[in-house]
Amino acid sequence: MNSEQMERFTQQMAFLVELDKMKNIRRQTRVLHEDRAENDAEHAWHLAMLALVLSEYANETVNVATVVETVLIHDIVEIDAGDTYAYDTAGNATKVEREQRAAERLFGMLPKEQSERFRRLWEEFEAGSTPEARFAAALDRIQPLTLNYCKQGESWQRHRIKPEQVIGRMQPVYAGSTVLGDYAMELIRRAQENGWFVTD
Amino acid sequence: MNSEQMERFTQQMAFLVELDKMKNIRRQTRVLHEDRAENDAEHAWHLAMLALVLSEYANETVNVATVVETVLIHDIVEIDAGDTYAYDTAGNATKVEREQRAAERLFGMLPKEQSERFRRLWEEFEAGSTPEARFAAALDRIQPLTLNYCKQGESWQRHRIKPEQVIGRMQPVYAGSTVLGDYAMELIRRAQENGWFVTD
Repeated sequence: MNSEQMERFTQQMAFLVELDKMKNIRRQTRVLHEDRAENDAEHAWHLAMLALVLSEYANETVNVATVVETVLIHDIVEIDAGDTYAYDTAGNATKVEREQRAAERLFGMLPKEQSERFRRLWEEFEAGSTPEARFAAALDRIQPLTLNYCKQGESWQRHRIKPEQVIGRMQPVYAGSTVLGDYAMELIRRAQENGWFVTD
Repeated sequence: MNSEQMERFTQQMAFLVELDKMKNIRRQTRVLHEDRAENDAEHAWHLAMLALVLSEYANETVNVATVVETVLIHDIVEIDAGDTYAYDTAGNATKVEREQRAAERLFGMLPKEQSERFRRLWEEFEAGSTPEARFAAALDRIQPLTLNYCKQGESWQRHRIKPEQVIGRMQPVYAGSTVLGDYAMELIRRAQENGWFVTD
């Protein structure tokens, strides 16, 4: 390796070491078999598996590899910006700006073309501007829904979330996959039937 | 959905829920910023990121999406077979049989063509029989090496691993990537220089 190649390799490894912080970012979702929050690295892996297994249900033809790549990188900005709970209104007001700065710094650690690629995929994900981004966003909503359903609505109860809020939260799923949208509605219906939401 | 489609979807979701157990399987490697072991889901995500960023260093031309898919699924058998520490001789003697049974049950939860695809990728990974499998295996060795290096050799000290053992363990890296093989040797050299190995 000449010194330019060495610098490139060093940048790449520094980014990959920085990514270890994803393992410390806790989400509101709980893992199924332990009493603890899921972290961003686990969540991203789980989504990638959903992408590989469920791609046939995308509304539009998707490049599965792009969906996988999108879900793998979609939360990296949270290393700087933190996880903002879906139902946290105040947090969500400042989320865009915080995440833009984070994307700048984190993806900026990589060589230019790699940096631009991840940045573009992340922007597309946030905007829902491609079939892959819309399908990735659908997966990002049904994964926590499924875990929460398996835990009998634990985090909805803890945060006193109403079924209408969950139904609203799941609407974007339909933009990526009608099948998964219907699946989400069915889970919410069953959760209500089972009395898993707090009623005031 | 007709009943056949519903059965297919139900199988797929059951597999994806089963995968949550990957989040409970502890490895010997420690995460960088907390005092705890890394789990298989985090490890697989981190490897997938290495695959996306470092594929240019593969010795042979690789399909990056296949490398990513391989690393995402390579440890799923551990849900049944458990993690076998690289330097555990007794455990490694029974590992093949335990993992074959696990692959049968776990991938067998999926519809046939998906089951066969993951099974094939996993078999290729274990055998190192494709360029993608060899590169994936290289990543699977340099990721824990890198974390352990960043932790100043903590797990080598805990298990009294000698530099020769780590050097031996890293030899397969060269089959996937000469650049990453040289990188591994350089880290081990520096770790020795820094006195991070236990000497009897």
